This record gives sequence, structure tokens and C-alpha cells, in this order.
Amino acid sequence: MEAYLKTNTELPCDLTFVIEGEEEVGSEHLAKFLKANRAELQCEAIIVSDTGMPDKDHPALTYALRGIIAFEITLRGPARDLHSGIFGGAVDNPAMALSQLLAKLRDKNGRIAIPHFYDDVKPLSAYERKEFKRLPITDRELQKMVGVKKMFGERGWTPMEQRSARPTFEINGLTSGYQGEGSKTIIPAWASAKITIRLVPDQHPKRVAAAVKRHLAKLCPPTARLTVKFGHGGEPYLVSPTGALAQAALRALKSGFGHEAFLAREGGSIPIVSAFKRHLHADSLLLGMALPDDNPHSPNEKFSLDAYALGMRMSAHLWPELAAASR
Amino acid sequence: MEAYLKTNTELPCDLTFVIEGEEEVGSEHLAKFLKANRAELQCEAIIVSDTGMPDKDHPALTYALRGIIAFEITLRGPARDLHSGIFGGAVDNPAMALSQLLAKLRDKNGRIAIPHFYDDVKPLSAYERKEFKRLPITDRELQKMVGVKKMFGERGWTPMEQRSARPTFEINGLTSGYQGEGSKTIIPAWASAKITIRLVPDQHPKRVAAAVKRHLAKLCPPTARLTVKFGHGGEPYLVSPTGALAQAALRALKSGFGHEAFLAREGGSIPIVSAFKRHLHADSLLLGMALPDDNPHSPNEKFSLDAYALGMRMSAHLWPELAAASR
Repeated sequence: MEAYLKTNTELPCDLTFVIEGEEEVGSEHLAKFLKANRAELQCEAIIVSDTGMPDKDHPALTYALRGIIAFEITLRGPARDLHSGIFGGAVDNPAMALSQLLAKLRDKNGRIAIPHFYDDVKPLSAYERKEFKRLPITDRELQKMVGVKKMFGERGWTPMEQRSARPTFEINGLTSGYQGEGSKTIIPAWASAKITIRLVPDQHPKRVAAAVKRHLAKLCPPTARLTVKFGHGGEPYLVSPTGALAQAALRALKSGFGHEAFLAREGGSIPIVSAFKRHLHADSLLLGMALPDDNPHSPNEKFSLDAYALGMRMSAHLWPELAAASR
Repeated sequence: MEAYLKTNTELPCDLTFVIEGEEEVGSEHLAKFLKANRAELQCEAIIVSDTGMPDKDHPALTYALRGIIAFEITLRGPARDLHSGIFGGAVDNPAMALSQLLAKLRDKNGRIAIPHFYDDVKPLSAYERKEFKRLPITDRELQKMVGVKKMFGERGWTPMEQRSARPTFEINGLTSGYQGEGSKTIIPAWASAKITIRLVPDQHPKRVAAAVKRHLAKLCPPTARLTVKFGHGGEPYLVSPTGALAQAALRALKSGFGHEAFLAREGGSIPIVSAFKRHLHADSLLLGMALPDDNPHSPNEKFSLDAYALGMRMSAHLWPELAAASR
């Protein structure tokens, strides 16, 4: 706004600031606040700056985020850890039963093998796939960044698409039996896996959780007792990249940065945008200026002053563009 | 011997006592002692009392033990734990890769799926299988003892055969990623499994280890780096159950206990019997008097005085039986 006021022209639209300080502790009170003040907060669009861009010459509008469901699978076998010499061979091993169950949840081409899992996945449009190709990061750079021997993902999509526009099934942790030095000859009494599934538009956390639960019950061998404990969930988010608001934001980015803007999807989740949508029925435009080396949530976290200045320039262009688009 | 001396007849054979106090700490010096004193220790048979019997009315000769190999498999993927929202979908998950690798090592019928794994497994004779059927323990009792929902094992063998006369592949522990409360949205950098394989006559620890290593290298996906770290190994053991020595021992058991004796295989390992065989070229007769509720290595460990007395009676019959058999 400050930047716009320097143009010495009247603001072309009303601006309301919602300042929230609880994002890192779960945003417990934001939804209640939005609900209680929905009349006063009514608006055409919401601007959130909590996303990134490839570099200063490549400003980006993030138009989609992934959602999430988290759960823990436990398989229980014998009443206690058993001596593997005395009983091994006549009793199923819960760690093996868990491995065999998990192995069936993703095929060798990286596709999640849970019936109805992909039912609500919105396909990528030709326009979106073209935009993905414009992103200035090569598969080789990505591979170097993560330090893997070879990239791996669902066939038919590029790594940049796989990590943001496709759902994913990740084992976050495995725990069973003995974990110390050397060996211990036991059949563990139980084995468990922590899982998070990233969702994409238009998947729904509750529908996917139900499909997962059904399929796990079906896969559980008769030798084990299964428990599935669900944790937090979050909806995926999408603003139409070809809609008037998104196109206005792209024009503002181009004018502010002096470079063509990029459309981006992010693989993580920003739960407040779902709250804005639910209570104010308005879309959020994710116009973040973070650079890949900003180290968010890490030692030496920074924010580039150059990116800050460019962001201000962009915002001076944003209000008239949005005002024109909303007319 | 004490019991025999009470018969007031001359000992029908020479007896040498080898007393070892290192069994629980790896028997480090026994093999060296046997090697150094092999001339003086030369004998026709060795008697070891370190096995059990179903109950006091069912004395048993243990004629076979399983061997063991222990190792740890580790699959490494990315250079560090990755954010599963930012990278999930474009990078293989080492915990999933490990689950899929382990899942392929045992089929759904309980058979170990490693090429050449069963090459040296000596089949059970009709006589041995008949002896197994005589053992006074039902599958239902065994299931209650271990507390599983359903027994599981290689098809075509009974649970008693599976747990002692067939090799087994056991995951003793699984470790990967986050193991605390709640969830952590990461792709773990690595995942590992501790494994022990129980071997049966005539499998050889080194040959089986080589087959395992070859097969794991073949199964490892191109997205992961595999390491396999081998630990201790032990050979399986077998005395012919129809040989003169074993039959002599069975007769002595019957005379001492007043009940028909049983032939038994044990699923665990007693490494010293291989050392006796290697250095003295003599078979060990495993004539133990432990009862199933003796709690070995546990609180309230006991040894039944009745079993002790019956064992002494048995030994008075054993020396003449063995002397006659060795003639």
C-alpha cells in the first residue's frame, strides 16, 4: 500500500489487513475470528505472502497447494516379543507382515495402489503443464539439491509436477523390535509405520482417509491385528490459473519485477487459505517473495531486501490490476 | 556317574569331563582348548545337557539344532531427511523401498524367496516326521503359548516342524525416520532392518550369506544405496536319529524315566556342539532335562529336582548303552 501511495493517485479498491500471529502454532483462533467478522471482512480476493519464487528474475504466483492426511498403522502379532529360534517359522512376523502390507500400497511405477484414491484428482490442463515446463529448474538441479542416486516418481509426470501437482504416499517413520547395536533374536510383538498422504485438488481428506482405512482392513493378513490412528488433515487448495484474479496477479508480478511471471504449485500446505475460502468465500492469491536459499524455520533464516523492494513495486501494480479484474 | 557307581559295577567306558564356564559370553576359549587337547580328549560321543523335554513323562533326545546368520540391511536415499510436502512424489522413499525389498523375500505361503536358499536343506525322513507327530503338544496349545490370532508357516509342514526343522527368515527390528509422538512430514534419508535367518542341516552359514547378499543386490532399486552388514553366524547341527548312538540314548532315556522317549529338534542354536564336531570329530548327544516352565535366562529360573533325579537314573543306564553301541 505504501508503494501505491507514492504514485499519488487514489487507491482503486478497499484494503483490509488481517494480521495473524498464530500461524506456527496452528492458527487456532483465526477461523473463529473470520466467522465472527465475516460481514466486515467481505472481499473479492485475499493476498497472502507465504510462498516462494525460483529467483529474483522469476516471480511466481502460487495457485495451488497440496492437502494432507496423517496416520499411523500398527500390526500386532504375538502377545510379546518371541525367541526367534524357538518359535521362528510357525508364527507370522509382524515386521514382515507390515512390510508386505506397505509394499502393496505403491506400485513399482510410483502410483498409489489404493482403490478410488485418484477418483477426485483434477487432471492438469494443457495450459498448466506448459507453465510447468517454463519453470527455471532442471531435473538435474533438483536431483543435486536432494542428493539422490536417481529420481523416482509416478510415470507420465515430470519431477516438478510430481512434487506439487500429484498426490503422494510417504512413510515418515518405521518402528519395530530391536533397534540397538548388534542383533537380538526376536520375533517382534508389533510393527508400526507413520504415514502422510499429500492430497491435490479436488481430493477430500475425509474421503481419502475412508478409502485408506477400507483398503488397509482388506490387506491386513489374518495373522495380525490392525489399528489405524488418524491425526491431522488439511484440504488441498486451487485458484483457477486462467481466472481473472490469477491473470491480474501475473500482470502485476511482471510489471513489478520486469520479468515474465510464472505459475507455480507448491507441494506443502497452508491451512489458513481453506479457512478464508470457507468463511469469506474468497480466493487467496499466494504472492510470496521467498527465495530457495532463505532457510525458512532453519538457522540463518533470511529475507532478501531486494525481493522485499521488488515485492513492494509489484504491490503498487497489484491494486489497480485487481480492481480492474473485479469490475 | 555318581548314579552309576551306586550300581557297584565297574564303569563300562571311560568318561572325561569338560567343564566350561563361558557359554553365556560366547565360549571364546573352548575351541582353542579343544584344539590344543584333541589327543587327550578323543572320544566316541559327547553328552551335553542343555536342552529340554516336553514334561517329566516325556523324556527327549534332541538330535538337531538350527544354525543362524545375522545381518542388517540399510537402504539410503536422499542426502538428508527431506520435507515430504516439498519433495514428496519426485523422490523414492527409503522406508517404502525397504518394505518392498523385504516383502519380496518371503512369499505368502511362508516360503523364503531367495534363489538357492533351500539347495542344501536335508529333507525330513518319514521316520522323523512320524516322531514329530508323537510330540505331546497340540497346535492349539502352541498358539495359546505365543498368543497369536492365527498360526502361520511354510505350507506342507506342521508348526512343530516349522519351528525346528525348517529354516526361517525373521525381521528382528525395523528403524526409519520419525518414531516419536504424532507425525513429522519427512521422507527419511534411510531405513534399516535387522534380520536373522535360522538354518537347518545341511545349510552352511557362508553359502547362505552369499546367496542372500547376491539376491539383495539384485532387488535393490536404482534409487537407493544398499549396505548389508553381517554379524555372527552358527552352523546347524544333526546327529542321525537312527544311528547307534542316538538309539542307545533313547533306550537309556526310556529306562531312566520309565516312559518311551521322544526324538526332538530344537529351533535354537548351541554353538559348542559344532566346535566338538570340528575338533574332536565326535557327535554330541543332547540329553537335557529342562522343563517348559523353567524360565531360562529369566526371573525365577529353576531346575526341577524331580527332573534332576530322573536324569541321574537315566545316566546310570546311559554308559552301558553307549559302551555297547560303540563296540
